[in-house]
Amino acid sequence: MKKQFATLCLATLTTCCFAQQNLFGEQPPLSPEVHSDHSVTFRLMAPKAESVQITGDFLPTQKVNTPYGEYDAPGIADLNKDANGLWTFTTKGSLKPELYLYNMIIDGVKVTDPANVYAIRDIANTTSIFLIGGNRADLYKVNKVPHGTVSKVWYDSPTAGMTRRCTVYTPAGYETSRKKYPVLYLLHGIGGDEQAWTELGRAAQILDNLIAKGKAEPMIVVMTNGNISQEACPGETSEGFKVPTMALPKTMDGYFEQAFPDVIKFVEATYRVQKDKGHRAIAGLSMGGFHSFYISINNPDVFDYVGLFSAAIDRQQQGGLDTIYADREQKIDKLFSMHPKLLWIGIGKTDFLYKNNADLRHYLDSKGFKYDYMETEGGHIWRNWRIYLTEFLPKLFK
Amino acid sequence: MKKQFATLCLATLTTCCFAQQNLFGEQPPLSPEVHSDHSVTFRLMAPKAESVQITGDFLPTQKVNTPYGEYDAPGIADLNKDANGLWTFTTKGSLKPELYLYNMIIDGVKVTDPANVYAIRDIANTTSIFLIGGNRADLYKVNKVPHGTVSKVWYDSPTAGMTRRCTVYTPAGYETSRKKYPVLYLLHGIGGDEQAWTELGRAAQILDNLIAKGKAEPMIVVMTNGNISQEACPGETSEGFKVPTMALPKTMDGYFEQAFPDVIKFVEATYRVQKDKGHRAIAGLSMGGFHSFYISINNPDVFDYVGLFSAAIDRQQQGGLDTIYADREQKIDKLFSMHPKLLWIGIGKTDFLYKNNADLRHYLDSKGFKYDYMETEGGHIWRNWRIYLTEFLPKLFK
Repeated sequence: MKKQFATLCLATLTTCCFAQQNLFGEQPPLSPEVHSDHSVTFRLMAPKAESVQITGDFLPTQKVNTPYGEYDAPGIADLNKDANGLWTFTTKGSLKPELYLYNMIIDGVKVTDPANVYAIRDIANTTSIFLIGGNRADLYKVNKVPHGTVSKVWYDSPTAGMTRRCTVYTPAGYETSRKKYPVLYLLHGIGGDEQAWTELGRAAQILDNLIAKGKAEPMIVVMTNGNISQEACPGETSEGFKVPTMALPKTMDGYFEQAFPDVIKFVEATYRVQKDKGHRAIAGLSMGGFHSFYISINNPDVFDYVGLFSAAIDRQQQGGLDTIYADREQKIDKLFSMHPKLLWIGIGKTDFLYKNNADLRHYLDSKGFKYDYMETEGGHIWRNWRIYLTEFLPKLFK
Repeated sequence: MKKQFATLCLATLTTCCFAQQNLFGEQPPLSPEVHSDHSVTFRLMAPKAESVQITGDFLPTQKVNTPYGEYDAPGIADLNKDANGLWTFTTKGSLKPELYLYNMIIDGVKVTDPANVYAIRDIANTTSIFLIGGNRADLYKVNKVPHGTVSKVWYDSPTAGMTRRCTVYTPAGYETSRKKYPVLYLLHGIGGDEQAWTELGRAAQILDNLIAKGKAEPMIVVMTNGNISQEACPGETSEGFKVPTMALPKTMDGYFEQAFPDVIKFVEATYRVQKDKGHRAIAGLSMGGFHSFYISINNPDVFDYVGLFSAAIDRQQQGGLDTIYADREQKIDKLFSMHPKLLWIGIGKTDFLYKNNADLRHYLDSKGFKYDYMETEGGHIWRNWRIYLTEFLPKLFK
């Protein structure tokens, strides 16, 4: 019997996942290993490799010149090889609590860490991930709390002329309660898609944890695909397993904003939701902040809560629907004449959109329009967007 | 404006995903490239590598000796390097329509193809994937048909003493219709989890496509986690990003089977479903076939449709709940005394569980119990389990 069970394991391993190495002693070394002091060791077994490096957002950045100007590229560090061909790198001291991204570079080829099955696709790249808990980063972990449901849902968008996919979070208890819930529409940045907030944004974990602590109201969160030319994220449409690209048409030209009421209509017809301004919020990062800004000022009676996370404010593309972007200041005035409960703005000190946001704030200040403002270290990065989400959610629907 | 848009792209690329190479001309070569004749070229840019190989299930297998006996390991082929350091391999002729899995081996290190963002974790390994359409494999593609919703849902299992996650497929139209639907419970194999059928099994695509063609009834499909010691798949529990393992306790010792009514109770309390034997089905692969077999014979009045895909039939582990496995033949007799509409058995000709299934068939034959039987080429592999699903679904709820 035991032999048959071993055979069952063996057959499963070898024929469906090429994993025979795991069974016969060649299992990969533990990588990454997070030590109790929150230093981290990375390991790669590669006796034949001449060079193994690691690049990640926990390493000091390095200045790089590009045709578009200088920027801070993620740092690179060398792993050291021992006599058995095991390459190792340990961080200098502890890492702060955070979700980190990294890649290995084997003889010049950037790959995910072969010993780490946890990886996230971000646009056209896949990076390995790990999480150091503690402080705010505990909100990014799966904890022993009630969990909401995450669904990939398709809805009709007559305005866009297609069926489109969104990701919907319904809070723990939604299935069994008869309650109606408020709704947050949460939008991604350029190149991203309807999976960005649940993958890199850890949105489901943040919501589960804040709701369990009583710090956020139980709410439904609808994460749309902001690329109006796409039905869904790469790999999930009839285009097949196509290489993802940032060079998508019609991302910031008004058509997504124009079609947005189709999403709201679907959500309010499908889920048990509160259908009034006081129970609707919209927020987004970067391009999604741009979308949130123009959707809210063009529909001043729809959302009582608006969040701009490292938002592009100025129009970015020519062509498209001028009406969405016309008369911006009058539209802002109109929005505020309807007494929204919250306009929340977050931006990193070194974000290239800092001035863009400062200009908006100056306008709001000049008119005496109230808003909440948070300024963080660093620039246009997911670390900041996760922080902004954890700050924004507790202010909603109170 | 254009410059700011480029900067927005740049900032997004560089700070959150290390993708600067894509913007500055070093983009990876296209890999895999499926040609019009369905031959496939794989490419890897690695000027400093000494050796690049590929291993995948489209290559001829090779015999390998192990402590557990000889087995067919996936084949390996060499890529050829050109003067620029571009490594290339093209398959000898066309590949048959299928979902294929592969890895690159760079100087001895097995990695996913860095140019291909589409990869699937299977237990402790991650493999790159691609799909050759045509024939049955068109059912594995995302086509322009109405799409169902795929949800990650948590339910209480008082019998297991924990909250557990399952994946639920609801067919296109579920949200807007007021109809009640039949339910298929679809179970994974050893080492797998509640994501296996939607990832490697392409279950959502197969269901969307068969339902759109009118070949399968619109149905709800509930994909549980068959490892009763787990709350959910690796990375989705409070254990964090732990290395997945096949060495889980309590996988085939009766406790999963015992707790199964909790899933049914949750599903029937939560979704609009038809709650009678004629509208319930259960099927599973390998260990999931074992689970389906013992759940159905222990609950002879619950399912009218049972599918055993490369199922383990004999008890695999000692200890645990003897009552689940006791009196097997009497239980089979009882099941058939209640006139189930379908017992469906599928097995590969070289499957190590072939005899196990043949013994069951002999017993059924000796009693005159009817069943459907399909024998396919090959062994204990996902290719067969996708085939079995496409054959099984059209027979349900008719």
